[in-house]
Amino acid sequence: MQIANGIEDLIRKQVYEADEKLPPIRKLADFLGVNNVTIVKAYDLLGEKSLTYKVRGSGTYVTPKSESLIAEISEFDNTDHLRNTLSSNQEYRQSLINFASATPRAEFFPISDFKTVLNDVLDRDLGEAFSYQEAKGYKPLRESICAYLKGYKIQTEAEHVQIISGAQQGLDIVSKSILDHNDVVIVEAPTYSGAIATFRSRGVKIIEIPMLVDGVSMAKLESLIKRYKPKLMFTMTHCQNPTGYSYSMKKKQALMTLADQYDFYILEDDYVSELIYDSPNKYPLKSMDPKDRVIYLKSFSKILMPGLRLGFMIVPNRLNQAVLNAKEATDISTSGLIQKAFDLYLKQGHWSKQLRYMKKIYYKKYLLMIEMLNKHLPRGANYYIPKGGIMFWIELPKGLSSRTFYDKLDRTKVVFVPGDMFYYNLKNERGIRLSIASVSEEEIRQGVPILCQAMKNFIKKEKELR
Amino acid sequence: MQIANGIEDLIRKQVYEADEKLPPIRKLADFLGVNNVTIVKAYDLLGEKSLTYKVRGSGTYVTPKSESLIAEISEFDNTDHLRNTLSSNQEYRQSLINFASATPRAEFFPISDFKTVLNDVLDRDLGEAFSYQEAKGYKPLRESICAYLKGYKIQTEAEHVQIISGAQQGLDIVSKSILDHNDVVIVEAPTYSGAIATFRSRGVKIIEIPMLVDGVSMAKLESLIKRYKPKLMFTMTHCQNPTGYSYSMKKKQALMTLADQYDFYILEDDYVSELIYDSPNKYPLKSMDPKDRVIYLKSFSKILMPGLRLGFMIVPNRLNQAVLNAKEATDISTSGLIQKAFDLYLKQGHWSKQLRYMKKIYYKKYLLMIEMLNKHLPRGANYYIPKGGIMFWIELPKGLSSRTFYDKLDRTKVVFVPGDMFYYNLKNERGIRLSIASVSEEEIRQGVPILCQAMKNFIKKEKELR
Repeated sequence: MQIANGIEDLIRKQVYEADEKLPPIRKLADFLGVNNVTIVKAYDLLGEKSLTYKVRGSGTYVTPKSESLIAEISEFDNTDHLRNTLSSNQEYRQSLINFASATPRAEFFPISDFKTVLNDVLDRDLGEAFSYQEAKGYKPLRESICAYLKGYKIQTEAEHVQIISGAQQGLDIVSKSILDHNDVVIVEAPTYSGAIATFRSRGVKIIEIPMLVDGVSMAKLESLIKRYKPKLMFTMTHCQNPTGYSYSMKKKQALMTLADQYDFYILEDDYVSELIYDSPNKYPLKSMDPKDRVIYLKSFSKILMPGLRLGFMIVPNRLNQAVLNAKEATDISTSGLIQKAFDLYLKQGHWSKQLRYMKKIYYKKYLLMIEMLNKHLPRGANYYIPKGGIMFWIELPKGLSSRTFYDKLDRTKVVFVPGDMFYYNLKNERGIRLSIASVSEEEIRQGVPILCQAMKNFIKKEKELR
Repeated sequence: MQIANGIEDLIRKQVYEADEKLPPIRKLADFLGVNNVTIVKAYDLLGEKSLTYKVRGSGTYVTPKSESLIAEISEFDNTDHLRNTLSSNQEYRQSLINFASATPRAEFFPISDFKTVLNDVLDRDLGEAFSYQEAKGYKPLRESICAYLKGYKIQTEAEHVQIISGAQQGLDIVSKSILDHNDVVIVEAPTYSGAIATFRSRGVKIIEIPMLVDGVSMAKLESLIKRYKPKLMFTMTHCQNPTGYSYSMKKKQALMTLADQYDFYILEDDYVSELIYDSPNKYPLKSMDPKDRVIYLKSFSKILMPGLRLGFMIVPNRLNQAVLNAKEATDISTSGLIQKAFDLYLKQGHWSKQLRYMKKIYYKKYLLMIEMLNKHLPRGANYYIPKGGIMFWIELPKGLSSRTFYDKLDRTKVVFVPGDMFYYNLKNERGIRLSIASVSEEEIRQGVPILCQAMKNFIKKEKELR
């Protein structure tokens, strides 16, 4: 593993470049004074991470694009992926305090309730449980969602609900429905990197606008709109990822006015509005959308069971057919079995029960996190207390780089996501994203002091260097 | 329903155009002498089909693009969708003999075996069953697939297997990995319309080459390659959809040579090679690919349990990272629960058992279909006996249009897919696709004579008209 890590480092630093051949196994084994098998294993580890590829009868080569590996790691907030990439060592994986992952702990997943509804569906529908669903989604589920959305002050009908295989697919489908090559999309900076990846893949022009603690500047937004004539703006209005910031009611209203005035759509990713504590301003933008400008995107699986891959969108009338076509061209339809099981899960009240349960757990972690940060955060670093959710955004003192901090951190103990991951062109070097999704209370108690101490040392050293 | 059908007709014929307002409910009710509620219901039916949309306080409008509705119906070979669109009437649905659908009959799905493995996974993995998987896919499943592929004479390793949520997603991901705006892709004509939809959505240039009974002309292909410099060719080498035609061994070899010589990739959709009866030439192109030019695409769910949404690709070394990135930007990863359950399903031998069982059923239908067609097909129409699979491609006499035949057919009795669905620009007006996936033996016995009689009448009338 040491050898693999060493080579990984060289690949990252581009000492080994794209498509360059790594040393032959025997040669490297001789050079390092180890067994051939050790090198074979090290190369296998690199291959598993897609850092290298083999050519039969020739050797091991560096995969092109590998310099973007770190970006991919946390881009999609995938614990397993992150952990696998950081190390395949089981012991290490378990000791790590992971503030990077946005994936909840598996121990809280409602396994037995979900098992029951799965079996209920199989017993009820037999083979039909494995049939294609309508591309729009299983109709009873779409109806259940409409009923459920009343709690969000959203009025809609089943024909405007599009079932998707998770929020990431929603981003992809909306891109296909609205955005053509060279169209413009406006995103907050920083924002969810999976959104940037999808828009990039679509070949559209991405314009960033800085995210402020109460939402983006409306004056700045209007000037960007006039200049670039966007077709779409992507936003997370509450407890944004990665900043945890939320739009004020006033800015939400202003945003709706602009969308209507300048004729663009808003894609609202309602990321964690269930975890807003004690705020009257907690309803989605979609609840104040008489002009049908908002595409509302919600994952059912993100907080509870990310492996389910299930979510939905509320689609404006005029986009209904385009979105349906895009869904078909993307994966025809979402798993009928999962849709049917989730419909029962919703109808039988398990979902609300599970939400209440998770909200309590997250609230305790949220309060503890604030307590620990207020106590340990070193002078010069600061953050803004979010209204809820799972993200905390720390800023280092001006002039310091969180990427440098990340590189120097002992990442066998704690890990976070450096803020530059969440930008496209704009850069804020100072941001650090801490997620409380994957850590336990005990880990917060241990991890925050470790991280803050390292931060303090880093700030001190950097100041001395000047 | 009569009223809804009538309006649907007018929309199709563009008497009502995109975004045109339909008559007010009361006015139309008066005019037709029916109750207001009847019109409301008719408009609801149209809305359900996305043919119309409502504007609150204003009325009901025609959805743009609705003229492409028929195309969408069978584009993705989705029984439920087709049936829902043709009619929501339960009785009608059950009496219809459906040669259009490529979806197998739910009664054959291996419900109890799959239920067992699902529960085994839930009991074994608890909450982890709902965790994210690696974007590449659950590793034990990727390993099981490698072992399974030996029966296809394909040698590969787990790191080259990419799990996908069904074959349609594979098309989408490959497009994102290889094709940029204005790149060229070559497709057979006719071909699977879901592929055309995906390539179109990617904004690439689609070049068609006529599919012949032993595969496309290699001379023609080479001249197209020289002229257009494609990055990709999409092919189904065995029992192609919709024609049922298969490439000869000689043409398969020539295809591999061209790919290497002119530096493009081949996307091979191995659609139904399991259902090839008694031919030595049944192995995929991927089994003869030393230069790593073929992206091999396979759905696990298509023939057995389409609602599962599960498949895989074997990805050339150099595309590994790009494909992984595209998968992440598309839906992060495929449902872990389904992957884990399917891994057990494969490992415990259920899959092979189920394949053998289905192969027997399909073989009987295949033989019966040949017998019935040989007996009833009217003079002038002809077809080529496929090596296996589920598709039969009938050609009407020269000069006749299968679309006209389709429009005049009594579609309450039998239904098929008119061939023009499967083209992009090239047109073959004569083709008729008959699928045996969804029909029973009894339905073949009844349906072929009905269809052939209608065809005979159609041919006769058309001749008289000249």
